[in-house]
Amino acid sequence: MSRRLAAVLVLLLLSCSSSRDGLGNPGQPSRAADESSLLERARLLSSLALNEGQSHEMLSELTRVAPARLSGTPAADRAVEWAEASMKRLGLKNVRRERVMVPRWIRGDVASCSMILRDSEEELDIAALGGSIATPEEGISGEVLMVRSFEELRRKASRAEGKIIFFNRPMPRALLNTFLAYRDAVPQRSSGAAEAGRVGGSFALVRSMTTRIDDNPHTGAMSYEDGVPMVPTAAISTADANRLAALITAGRNPVLRIRLDCQSMPDVESANVVGDLPGSSIPEEIVLIGGHLDSWDLGAGAHDDGAGCVHSLEAVRLIQAAGLRPRRTIRVVLFMNEENGLRGGRAYARDHAQELFRHVAAIESDSGGFLPRGFSCNASGARAEAIREIVDELDPLGMGAYIPGGGGADIAPMGPAGVTLLGMVTVSHRYFDYHHSAIDNMDAVNERELALGAAAMAYMASALADANLPPEN
Amino acid sequence: MSRRLAAVLVLLLLSCSSSRDGLGNPGQPSRAADESSLLERARLLSSLALNEGQSHEMLSELTRVAPARLSGTPAADRAVEWAEASMKRLGLKNVRRERVMVPRWIRGDVASCSMILRDSEEELDIAALGGSIATPEEGISGEVLMVRSFEELRRKASRAEGKIIFFNRPMPRALLNTFLAYRDAVPQRSSGAAEAGRVGGSFALVRSMTTRIDDNPHTGAMSYEDGVPMVPTAAISTADANRLAALITAGRNPVLRIRLDCQSMPDVESANVVGDLPGSSIPEEIVLIGGHLDSWDLGAGAHDDGAGCVHSLEAVRLIQAAGLRPRRTIRVVLFMNEENGLRGGRAYARDHAQELFRHVAAIESDSGGFLPRGFSCNASGARAEAIREIVDELDPLGMGAYIPGGGGADIAPMGPAGVTLLGMVTVSHRYFDYHHSAIDNMDAVNERELALGAAAMAYMASALADANLPPEN
Repeated sequence: MSRRLAAVLVLLLLSCSSSRDGLGNPGQPSRAADESSLLERARLLSSLALNEGQSHEMLSELTRVAPARLSGTPAADRAVEWAEASMKRLGLKNVRRERVMVPRWIRGDVASCSMILRDSEEELDIAALGGSIATPEEGISGEVLMVRSFEELRRKASRAEGKIIFFNRPMPRALLNTFLAYRDAVPQRSSGAAEAGRVGGSFALVRSMTTRIDDNPHTGAMSYEDGVPMVPTAAISTADANRLAALITAGRNPVLRIRLDCQSMPDVESANVVGDLPGSSIPEEIVLIGGHLDSWDLGAGAHDDGAGCVHSLEAVRLIQAAGLRPRRTIRVVLFMNEENGLRGGRAYARDHAQELFRHVAAIESDSGGFLPRGFSCNASGARAEAIREIVDELDPLGMGAYIPGGGGADIAPMGPAGVTLLGMVTVSHRYFDYHHSAIDNMDAVNERELALGAAAMAYMASALADANLPPEN
Repeated sequence: MSRRLAAVLVLLLLSCSSSRDGLGNPGQPSRAADESSLLERARLLSSLALNEGQSHEMLSELTRVAPARLSGTPAADRAVEWAEASMKRLGLKNVRRERVMVPRWIRGDVASCSMILRDSEEELDIAALGGSIATPEEGISGEVLMVRSFEELRRKASRAEGKIIFFNRPMPRALLNTFLAYRDAVPQRSSGAAEAGRVGGSFALVRSMTTRIDDNPHTGAMSYEDGVPMVPTAAISTADANRLAALITAGRNPVLRIRLDCQSMPDVESANVVGDLPGSSIPEEIVLIGGHLDSWDLGAGAHDDGAGCVHSLEAVRLIQAAGLRPRRTIRVVLFMNEENGLRGGRAYARDHAQELFRHVAAIESDSGGFLPRGFSCNASGARAEAIREIVDELDPLGMGAYIPGGGGADIAPMGPAGVTLLGMVTVSHRYFDYHHSAIDNMDAVNERELALGAAAMAYMASALADANLPPEN
């Protein structure tokens, strides 16, 4: 009751200080949030998040305690501990680790690329892709075959033998949604090594996945194909990719000498971390929210996906601070190993197979701590319409975009069981500046944008936990 | 004709690479931009801006050549030269400097604030406010009277004599639009010195205008009042404001010793820089676009308002690159002295008084190089409706907000003559992190967000230059 009172007071205070703003609503009587309209709920949660939010502080802590928390590393273990402690501090119930075996890939100490011309030699900025094998200790040397697509590589297969294959297709900059631009170019990273190995290449060097031109190589996952020779693979910064491409185009034929000493080790034990905010009247039904706890190892993983983790943790804090008592249980799951294996997402769907029918929806935040724009959702028919109406209420706050689509990698394995999947959609222009690189750190995160993501998650989770949702049809 | 052809090719290429994106439009035939719908025009301009935009490069150049270009400084002179050269390079006609006399305020070398407690002394981060007088050379020392409003100061006037008045009202963080939060708190900065002087205070120390808690003091304009004793005034960083407030609240009564050696000099000559893209069929009618060339002197003025300047310059470049030939003249005006005098804006309205009736509209960009959300506009009646329809076309690109309101400080003096005023509206969450501080530099600018602002300006300028607009009623 005191929490409800506090919530009412906050609303009243805000309505005094605001006029033509998305928040505050002068002249309107205020009610406790769980009796009020969805729009009032959204405004209250946003106000609380902006005014006294803890997401920035939580993310600072996570990135300080466990930066570069790649699956199977001590940093990932510390992240698991941090998640468990945070959930307990926030009053979640039945906080637990759920065991997951994860791959352990070690970057090593050496990642060098010398570009040798007739009269000069210089170092290029590269980073091994996650999962790559090492080069021989003396490195791999060779001329470069530059291509922009797998089709082009196949056409030029006769010239590929022994060459370093340089995949140089940029993410198309003109697309407003950078995730679509990523989708266009990322097969070079995930399958470049296999394609290079197939045509007899010695190495797969991949242009970094960003539209920005700078010196930061961006790592990421790749996989080998059975029956295809394994070649090592690395990302090259966009600035160096442009430099290399210009030389090749000018016919100067540089030779590269590349060394990597990364290696894959046996799987090790790790965990998803799970905690519940029990529902007030239908506790057996679950709305799952979450992000992934692991990150790549070059930066601190602030946006990817520390932001998604704190969105989810802060969401349950905000829901409680607002005096809301959602009918269904809201379960926070911080998944392990999204980046290089998806073992956590697969394990959750497998280990909870018997209760997935009680999972009303799952919402993932894995698009960074940027301004939320709305939600993607895989529902159809009347269920989609009902969820669209809930999202629409966020329109006056600029977060009301409803986008048919998937939810996120970690929750995708629950899809076949009929769980409705949602993903937080953010303004994506800056995301790939940082993604998987050494600059995905706290200074790239704006406190207000991060806070509003948590508010959007709190709104969506609590609204779905309260809603009468029609079945899929 | 070759430009039109290029524009068509760009549209065709884009439509091949895009599916569920705001840009590109698969399956639709493409036409040259000036024969096409407004939405197609917006898409083309956005694509060009993202794909091959020059706004980031231009802003890098301006902030490198002329950082800290406060009115009356050599840096401001270099900015004028840069603006003139840039306009000529972009093919504008009748490029000229229009003379403006501007104030010259010199920050000086000393800005220190020692906080003295019984057993310790530490330095706080302050910066003189623009226009402040100096302290005596030995500084001003005294106890602190902390207030959160002018009303509170007046109530406590009897305790103000000889005190350092500390205005500590924070910008209200819960407001979604940070410009409204700024408006709430900024009178402390602009009038704090006068209010402090009125009650016998010795100094006005003002909490910096930002919602972020950090160590950067944020400067800005202030003015004295005739007949009120002049006291020096400075901004204190939010982190130090919080520290100081905590000590005061705890009853520890620190003494401050503050030194400033700033001074005001006689006015000096400077200039607005003006250039025209002549209209194709109604060249005598003008759509004015612009920003302000001067900046504060702590940082490079990247967002405030280098961004607005390059939005305007890049807009005319994009319009030409898209093969558009707007009917009316688009005039770029880069105003001098917005920050501490508004002399440029006033001079333009005065010197062009006889032709303001031929100014169909004026659009200012002075909200930073962040993602554009839409436009504010002071029109009413049928004219407002016609402009709203033009803005609405930007909705699929997420820039379609139409907000009744003003345009910007520099163009406001044209308002009484009946010129329709518009202002670019951006996502404001990060703006005040940088505003008027030492960190308003290029690394705070995202290339894509900046580019889209230029596209929005190009769209709005060209659409207004082509539109049949009803008169105000």
